[in-house]
Amino acid sequence: MDKWYSLSGDQSDTVISTRIRLARNIDDIAFPWRLDFQGKTKVNELVKNAVFEEFPEQFGYISMTDLSHLQAVSLAERHVISPEFTSCEEGTGLLISSDESVSIMICEEDHIRLQVMKSGLALSEAYKTADSIDNSLDKSLHYAFDERIGYMTADPTNLGTAMRASVFLHLPALTACGQINAISNTVSKLGLSIGGAYGSRKKPAGDIYQISNRITLGITEDTATANLESIVRQLINQERSAAEREIKNPALEDKIYRSLGVLENARMLNTDEFMELISYVRLGAAVGIIDIPIETINALITDMQPATVSVTNEGIDTVAARDIRRAELVRKALVQNR
Amino acid sequence: MDKWYSLSGDQSDTVISTRIRLARNIDDIAFPWRLDFQGKTKVNELVKNAVFEEFPEQFGYISMTDLSHLQAVSLAERHVISPEFTSCEEGTGLLISSDESVSIMICEEDHIRLQVMKSGLALSEAYKTADSIDNSLDKSLHYAFDERIGYMTADPTNLGTAMRASVFLHLPALTACGQINAISNTVSKLGLSIGGAYGSRKKPAGDIYQISNRITLGITEDTATANLESIVRQLINQERSAAEREIKNPALEDKIYRSLGVLENARMLNTDEFMELISYVRLGAAVGIIDIPIETINALITDMQPATVSVTNEGIDTVAARDIRRAELVRKALVQNR
Repeated sequence: MDKWYSLSGDQSDTVISTRIRLARNIDDIAFPWRLDFQGKTKVNELVKNAVFEEFPEQFGYISMTDLSHLQAVSLAERHVISPEFTSCEEGTGLLISSDESVSIMICEEDHIRLQVMKSGLALSEAYKTADSIDNSLDKSLHYAFDERIGYMTADPTNLGTAMRASVFLHLPALTACGQINAISNTVSKLGLSIGGAYGSRKKPAGDIYQISNRITLGITEDTATANLESIVRQLINQERSAAEREIKNPALEDKIYRSLGVLENARMLNTDEFMELISYVRLGAAVGIIDIPIETINALITDMQPATVSVTNEGIDTVAARDIRRAELVRKALVQNR
Repeated sequence: MDKWYSLSGDQSDTVISTRIRLARNIDDIAFPWRLDFQGKTKVNELVKNAVFEEFPEQFGYISMTDLSHLQAVSLAERHVISPEFTSCEEGTGLLISSDESVSIMICEEDHIRLQVMKSGLALSEAYKTADSIDNSLDKSLHYAFDERIGYMTADPTNLGTAMRASVFLHLPALTACGQINAISNTVSKLGLSIGGAYGSRKKPAGDIYQISNRITLGITEDTATANLESIVRQLINQERSAAEREIKNPALEDKIYRSLGVLENARMLNTDEFMELISYVRLGAAVGIIDIPIETINALITDMQPATVSVTNEGIDTVAARDIRRAELVRKALVQNR
C-alpha cells in the first residue's frame, strides 16, 4: 500500500502535511511514568484489544522493544512516533495502519497518543478521522475526562482538548529573504509554536517548518484548528508572494537548476546536502520551473532521512554506504519523473 | 567550415591539440621593432601577396587595427595569435585559413609567425604542413638565413630552426594527485617548457598544459619534434595510469558526475568555474564513464573562453550576460550530445 505521504494534498506547493495528535488516558489507571512494566503491559493490552475490535485488520501492533534503535528512529523521521518514543522503553507499544497515516503510541507520556497524518493542508479532515477513531475507542476504554478541565494528561499543559494540530510547511522563499524570523515572532504571539521539522529547530533542514497550536484549555478543537488554519493560509500566501518575487533573481533560478543537476548526478549525498538541495528543487517545482511532481519530492524528503535509508535498504552499514545509496535512490526517483 | 579544434585527433583522451610555429624574416628588411608604419605595411604587402599567389582563396587577411580588442583577444584564446599580438599595433596583420588551422601573424616579433594547428597529437603532420607552406613562401620571399646559425630571428633564443612545437595536454589526474610538479621539473631539465595553456601559467585553468621545445639551435626540426613527442607520450601514459588509479576514488567519480550535472543545469557560469567543471567532465569522458564526445568538450573549452563568447554572440555587453549565455551554450552542447 502507498504510504500516505506519497499522495497529493491541498496547497501542496507550500504545505507538506498535516498532523492531528490526541493525548488520552484511561480512567482509573495511573499515568505511564507511575506504572511498572506490568502496569504498562496491561495498558498495551487494553488499547490493542480496543483497536483490534473496533478496526479489525487495519492496524499492526509492535512492541517497541522489538525494534532496533535505527528502526525506531526511522519511524520518528516519518513522524509516525515522537522523537522521545525512540528510546524503546519496556512496556511501550505502537499501533500503526498500513499506509502509516494513523498511529497510536501506547505508554508514551500518556496512555494513548493517537496521530492522524494527511498530505497537504487537511486540518478538518485529519481531525475528523482522529475524532472518529477516538470516539470508537472511548466506548470500551473510558477516558479520564473532567467536565471543567477536559481530558486528563500527564503534562498539565495538554489539559483541555489534549489536541496538538500541526502543519508542516515548506517555506524556502520566506527563509531566503529573511522574513521567516519576523513571522516566527508573530506566530508565537498568536499562541502557536513554530520550528524546524527536521534537524534542529533553530536551523530547519530543508526549510521545512512545523507550526502547531499551543493552547488546549478553554478552546474547542474546531476553534483551535480554525485558528491554526487561518494563520497557515496567511503563511501560504506570504510564501507564494515571496517565491514569486525571489524567483526573478537569476541567481536563485541558477541555484535551483544547479541543485537539480547535482541531485540527478551525484554519486554521494549526505543528509544535510540532500535537504539543502531538495529544498531548492521543491521551490522550483512549486513555482513551476521544474517539472517534477511535488509528491515525488515529498516522498523523497521522507524516504531519504538517514535512519530510513538504512532500514529500508539492505547492506547499509556505514555512513559512506548510506550516502552512496541515497544518491542512487534520489537519481532514480528524479530522472524517472522528468 | 568546421573549425580545426572541433575535429577528432590522435590520443585525444589526453592531448587536446598540437601547434607548430615557425618564425621567419625577409632578407634585407629590418626586424619589425626597427620598422616604421610604412616599412611594416610593405612587409604586410609582401607576405600577403606571396600567400595569395601560392594559396589562392585559402586565406583571409585582416589588418589587426580593424579588429576590436575583444576580437583580438578571442583570436588569442583560440591560439590563432599570440597574446602579445592582441595589442593591435599599426602595421600588424593576420592571414588566416577558414578552418583557423593555419595562421600567419605579420610583423609580430618577426616578419612572419606561421602557425599550424591540429587536433590531438600530430607533431609530424603539423610540421609537414607548416614546412610545405614555408617552402612555398620562401620561393618569393627569400628568408634571412645563415648556414651556421639558421633562420635569423628578432629574439636570438629562436635562432636555428626558429620553430616552436607545442602540445596542449589535459592532465587532470596528474594534477589531482600532485605528481604534476615533479613532472614539470623533469620536463624543464629535458630542455622543454611546460605551463598552463589557459589562465596563469602557475595555476593552469582546466588542468590544460602547454608543453614546448625550448632548444632551436644545433638541432633539426625532426629531432626537436621527435624529442617532444617522446616526452609527450610518456606524459600520456602517466596521465592514463593516474586516471585509472584516481577514478577508483568514489569522491572523484562523484565530483565528475556533479560537474556534469552543474554544467547541464546551471543558468550562470563564469569562466573559472566552467574551466574547473569541464576538466572533470573531460576526465570522465576520457576514462569512459561519461558518454560525451571529446571533440564536443574540446570545442566547448575553446568556444567558452570569455572574449570568444562575447564576440561570437550578440548582445553580450556585461560579464553577467556573458555568464548567462555561456551557461545556455554549455547546456545545449552537452544535452545535445548525451
